[in-house]
Amino acid sequence: MAKDLINVGLIGYKFMGKAHSFGFVNAPMMFPDIKAKPVLKAIVGRDEPAVREAMEQYGWQSFETDYKKLIARDDIDLVDIATGNNVHAEIAIAAAEAGKDIFCEKPLAMNVPEARQMLDAVEKAGVKHMVNFNYRAVPAVALAKKMIDDGMIGRIFHWRSVYLQDWIIDPDFPLVWRLQKDIAGSGSLGDLAAHSIDLANWLVGDIDEVSSNLTTFIKKRPKLAETTGGLSAKGGADLGDVTVDDAIIALTKFKNGAIGTIEATRFAAGNRNGNRFEINGDKGSIRFNVERLNELEYFNREDPDAYQGWRTISVTEGIHPYVQGWWPAGHIIGWGETFVHQVVNLMNALADNEMPTPNFRDGLKVQTVLEAIEKSAESGRWEKVVSE
Amino acid sequence: MAKDLINVGLIGYKFMGKAHSFGFVNAPMMFPDIKAKPVLKAIVGRDEPAVREAMEQYGWQSFETDYKKLIARDDIDLVDIATGNNVHAEIAIAAAEAGKDIFCEKPLAMNVPEARQMLDAVEKAGVKHMVNFNYRAVPAVALAKKMIDDGMIGRIFHWRSVYLQDWIIDPDFPLVWRLQKDIAGSGSLGDLAAHSIDLANWLVGDIDEVSSNLTTFIKKRPKLAETTGGLSAKGGADLGDVTVDDAIIALTKFKNGAIGTIEATRFAAGNRNGNRFEINGDKGSIRFNVERLNELEYFNREDPDAYQGWRTISVTEGIHPYVQGWWPAGHIIGWGETFVHQVVNLMNALADNEMPTPNFRDGLKVQTVLEAIEKSAESGRWEKVVSE
Amino acid sequence: MAKDLINVGLIGYKFMGKAHSFGFVNAPMMFPDIKAKPVLKAIVGRDEPAVREAMEQYGWQSFETDYKKLIARDDIDLVDIATGNNVHAEIAIAAAEAGKDIFCEKPLAMNVPEARQMLDAVEKAGVKHMVNFNYRAVPAVALAKKMIDDGMIGRIFHWRSVYLQDWIIDPDFPLVWRLQKDIAGSGSLGDLAAHSIDLANWLVGDIDEVSSNLTTFIKKRPKLAETTGGLSAKGGADLGDVTVDDAIIALTKFKNGAIGTIEATRFAAGNRNGNRFEINGDKGSIRFNVERLNELEYFNREDPDAYQGWRTISVTEGIHPYVQGWWPAGHIIGWGETFVHQVVNLMNALADNEMPTPNFRDGLKVQTVLEAIEKSAESGRWEKVVSE
Amino acid sequence: MAKDLINVGLIGYKFMGKAHSFGFVNAPMMFPDIKAKPVLKAIVGRDEPAVREAMEQYGWQSFETDYKKLIARDDIDLVDIATGNNVHAEIAIAAAEAGKDIFCEKPLAMNVPEARQMLDAVEKAGVKHMVNFNYRAVPAVALAKKMIDDGMIGRIFHWRSVYLQDWIIDPDFPLVWRLQKDIAGSGSLGDLAAHSIDLANWLVGDIDEVSSNLTTFIKKRPKLAETTGGLSAKGGADLGDVTVDDAIIALTKFKNGAIGTIEATRFAAGNRNGNRFEINGDKGSIRFNVERLNELEYFNREDPDAYQGWRTISVTEGIHPYVQGWWPAGHIIGWGETFVHQVVNLMNALADNEMPTPNFRDGLKVQTVLEAIEKSAESGRWEKVVSE
Repeated sequence: MAKDLINVGLIGYKFMGKAHSFGFVNAPMMFPDIKAKPVLKAIVGRDEPAVREAMEQYGWQSFETDYKKLIARDDIDLVDIATGNNVHAEIAIAAAEAGKDIFCEKPLAMNVPEARQMLDAVEKAGVKHMVNFNYRAVPAVALAKKMIDDGMIGRIFHWRSVYLQDWIIDPDFPLVWRLQKDIAGSGSLGDLAAHSIDLANWLVGDIDEVSSNLTTFIKKRPKLAETTGGLSAKGGADLGDVTVDDAIIALTKFKNGAIGTIEATRFAAGNRNGNRFEINGDKGSIRFNVERLNELEYFNREDPDAYQGWRTISVTEGIHPYVQGWWPAGHIIGWGETFVHQVVNLMNALADNEMPTPNFRDGLKVQTVLEAIEKSAESGRWEKVVSE
Repeated sequence: MAKDLINVGLIGYKFMGKAHSFGFVNAPMMFPDIKAKPVLKAIVGRDEPAVREAMEQYGWQSFETDYKKLIARDDIDLVDIATGNNVHAEIAIAAAEAGKDIFCEKPLAMNVPEARQMLDAVEKAGVKHMVNFNYRAVPAVALAKKMIDDGMIGRIFHWRSVYLQDWIIDPDFPLVWRLQKDIAGSGSLGDLAAHSIDLANWLVGDIDEVSSNLTTFIKKRPKLAETTGGLSAKGGADLGDVTVDDAIIALTKFKNGAIGTIEATRFAAGNRNGNRFEINGDKGSIRFNVERLNELEYFNREDPDAYQGWRTISVTEGIHPYVQGWWPAGHIIGWGETFVHQVVNLMNALADNEMPTPNFRDGLKVQTVLEAIEKSAESGRWEKVVSE
Repeated sequence: MAKDLINVGLIGYKFMGKAHSFGFVNAPMMFPDIKAKPVLKAIVGRDEPAVREAMEQYGWQSFETDYKKLIARDDIDLVDIATGNNVHAEIAIAAAEAGKDIFCEKPLAMNVPEARQMLDAVEKAGVKHMVNFNYRAVPAVALAKKMIDDGMIGRIFHWRSVYLQDWIIDPDFPLVWRLQKDIAGSGSLGDLAAHSIDLANWLVGDIDEVSSNLTTFIKKRPKLAETTGGLSAKGGADLGDVTVDDAIIALTKFKNGAIGTIEATRFAAGNRNGNRFEINGDKGSIRFNVERLNELEYFNREDPDAYQGWRTISVTEGIHPYVQGWWPAGHIIGWGETFVHQVVNLMNALADNEMPTPNFRDGLKVQTVLEAIEKSAESGRWEKVVSE
Repeated sequence: MAKDLINVGLIGYKFMGKAHSFGFVNAPMMFPDIKAKPVLKAIVGRDEPAVREAMEQYGWQSFETDYKKLIARDDIDLVDIATGNNVHAEIAIAAAEAGKDIFCEKPLAMNVPEARQMLDAVEKAGVKHMVNFNYRAVPAVALAKKMIDDGMIGRIFHWRSVYLQDWIIDPDFPLVWRLQKDIAGSGSLGDLAAHSIDLANWLVGDIDEVSSNLTTFIKKRPKLAETTGGLSAKGGADLGDVTVDDAIIALTKFKNGAIGTIEATRFAAGNRNGNRFEINGDKGSIRFNVERLNELEYFNREDPDAYQGWRTISVTEGIHPYVQGWWPAGHIIGWGETFVHQVVNLMNALADNEMPTPNFRDGLKVQTVLEAIEKSAESGRWEKVVSE
């Protein structure tokens, strides 16, 4: 029996374009029960030679150099937005108005008003929408969610997350786009803390109030000759202003009475992608670290007294979420595989005519927390997260 | 050549009395270069049979049931205060006025005014004073201090500490003295966070401002029949108010521009004594966990690019601080051994007629941070730490 | 500029067929510098509906139900043998005689004579050949090899490897083909220890002598109704003989004077795929565990005395072997990705008209060690590894 | 009620003398329920100034420079032998003949005949005897024993132990007594593997057969000017022969059908005191590492399928063996504390007029395994352990 086919148009072809392509190619191959198959119809980028090369490398059938042309095409069902944050809203709204379903990178938008406009647009158009908080699709994180939903952790007291990176400690590191507010929106806040906030909202419950601090340790950096430099780009002698945060620390109160801490930084030497969280409840605790993403640490207060201990679960068994698509137990998967899982979730939802999760509503919720964090950093007070 | 002898009077004979006795007995035995030997002259407790038993068990020469009698004795050089927090000030001031040197458990006092009075008293009397922040005397922590002082970590960006315990998660756990403000002063704040704050001040530099939250998750607990119940005591049917914090979370700004997070809780299931900290600088990072106190994790940004990694240093070599008193490399020491080190430091300072560290000035500094945290928890704003 | 194209025919479509397909599909996508592109021409299996389904799932262009037909096809350049061990020789020899290049799963053969015949056949035919010891293609293992070759470990004293699994502890687990000598050749020896032996030969040097023991803990198991049952198959009431080893332990002497231990077992509860090794030299040591395959532990004896320690290198930097094809630092890869690397190595060798490694010569060398181990287990003496 | 007093005479005052003194001093202090109190009557050493200093440092009441004088004293109940291995037998036999109870360091003797003579002597004299395999007295190891005895591990398949040190890798390290067969008896075999063998016998069951290899990597080393040099001694230009093994590897078969591997070496860079073992059974597994001696890793095959994992038990709870003498949960103990536990066990057995364990019978059993290992290393065959 033939599967549904979903024609995909991907906007963006660099780091995120590669990860999304990996997801689309491998999803139907590794998950034969997927309910619809993505067809790699078109990839979009402004630099024609580069996008043509990406098309060939990843196996897309065609390319466009203007996203509006993509949206205008009849043969596109799903628009996948893997661009810089500053054009998410513009593209998503146009795609929604054209009746396309949408898959969008995180953070959803530059700010709350933009995110709200985007949500309004997709809801008005009645299209499906998904935002790529891919860490929800780590098997160990999905297992944590199941454990919490099943009551294995009990009443939650504490959330404790850090997202630690260290790639801009060197003051000679240049002023790349991620350090410019007009393109990136924010620094470690939107890039890193956004992931932690989505996980906190999903796993613990809605964040209600925050107190925070945003810091920029190095305020001027060498300007780039070209605007497009990657991580290895070299800056010149001219210095320009860093206009985003290098680090953010926050305290949180959740609606359900739990309390939490959130930290994200690009100045924690020795941490390349240290996305870690801990949850403590009255029945047990869990710990997770994305650099060991196949493992979930679990403490069960109901184990016999003399034999309690933190248990390292190798979340690689066929009975664990998503694992049936991969290898035998103990044969680990990687970070890229989370994009495969997101595509599976997206395709299944589209085939079933259901709304995927996480979607723009979740993306907006994260945005309201980001906004409260920015507000608190300015006011020096606890700030309420406005209800989306 | 005979060593100096220091006649010690110890007030308190329970958990802390045992730990201090262990320190006094073993210090001269394991550290033959100690410059003065403690003589276990007298131990003090109000319950005569119990204190007599402690005297015999730990090898004290005599006992008293009233600390004033101890202070009045001519044959006591050093008064060691290992009592509940609510009588530190009273005893220390009396001891100072009697010209005794003083060793005092942490936190120094119930609040800043008390601590200031204590410092005034010892300074006026010209006696020596020390406060027992024993985690400074962990070899790995002392090594961390040396590394920071030697410039191996460079400019510090981040402090990140948690002190996680889990002994009162059960709502049936009774209303012991540690949960009563009039005796304990505070809950996780003074008991646990005080340690982290002292380490932060010592390792990173002075904390300047804080934003915080104090939470009491379980507000009523079974009253104890007797006031003296230990950890295994059972409460009755009557409930009483918990008047201290169960958990404290705080953001910090340091005077030198670093930022930090501090958390202390008794509700983190799976953590018995999880006193952990991380420091990130522009040359490297360190991590420490008191449950693996013989290890220090170190990341050196100046290692060759392809071979960088977190290094687990077994701080058990003869060249490491304090280790020459113990065993060959790889033969670990325990938590109790930190009391031995504190006694060595104290005896050496007394023999050299120098002021030991950490002393009441450090204790007062911690107290000012505790006060700012309490103030911020009430005001909902960042609060300055007042200069001691 | 168009790349070379290599037409691939894959024999086998189950676990290994899936892993090989994953490799062929992703290699040119993730490694754009690959020198030749594999074309997924045909997949082979005896069960037509199943192989047809595999063809569609993994994107092969055609299928055959008889490997001889595949070998007879002119449009096949490379024959990939991912079948049971008992038909490797037959297929490889036929493929060589037909002038096809060959990629073969490990262990190469059922025994030394078979392996030698295979090597003779490919050498006589002048075709390229590769054997899939995929753990060589783990970035951390390749880094270990580079460190040893660069002299960072120095003179090697010790090899210490275990390959621990636990999937047949239950005596009700049925008599699957892997437990039958006529199909599998051996048990944990050829399935698991073969990997460790290849790594030992590659990283330390040639194994010269062995002393060993082969054990079968559970000697009879329920027969399967069908011969094709997978890991979750249920056996019936009839019992049959387990004819392979459950576990193997061995001591080794290397030609260069190093000594080692090798263990492989399917009875080590709690270990799903615990392929671990340690190497100790006079300049340093390394440790590896495939369940954390993105990490390499390294101890450098030349670090300053007070700061020596085991360093956990996150082998996820762009400068590490194979990593440039994947994600930013700290974004880990999985076990399946090693098949991608093997395909890249194979394609590059074919494009350059060079012999890939590891090849049948390496496969034969492993086979001679396996033979010596079996011989020692019978003789109760140390046995020499015969020179291949 | 007054306790029994046991008058102790300790022979040896260096590393082991210090550890034993630590045990005698702290045992009655930390374990008030101890049934008899050791009295530190006399310490013995040939170097009068040195032994006098040790007497004062550790608090012994008197000293002797000839062990025979000690044995002749009426006021000595227990002779503690903490000397070099080559005089254990001579002293123990003399002490037994004088009717003294005996506590002896491990390995018990230089060889099986000596050990047998010692056992004969104590049995003939009817005195109590104990051998100091102190790792049995690690709380985590004692817990492992209890778990095995309680059936929590089930039928044991595998023993896997290593005892890794690295202090003689440097070829300039001099020819200390531990490298001379006439004083030390053997090298890593008696010093390190003896511990592993005792644990294997105790935890798994009697070892029945062994196959082994003994290696001396560095065959000549600088002679010492004085015979008494410690670890930091410097050798001269003259080289002498190393007459003991640098490393030993062995395979074992146990009487109950389990199989095992044992390795001990002084050439494993990065391992200071890496005494580790793993046990796999059909109900679960355990792992232990003496460098983290407060932790026991436990895998329970009966945990729910999706939540199985290696559990790190912090063996620091009041309900764990020996822990009630120390600190609250999570406050770890050190290696020296095992000597305190051994003294408690010894004193309680003496007070109860029972034979302590491990005793000379256990020491002889270890000796028979050491002998079989040496024999196998020479014969190149499996060798039976002779029944003691």
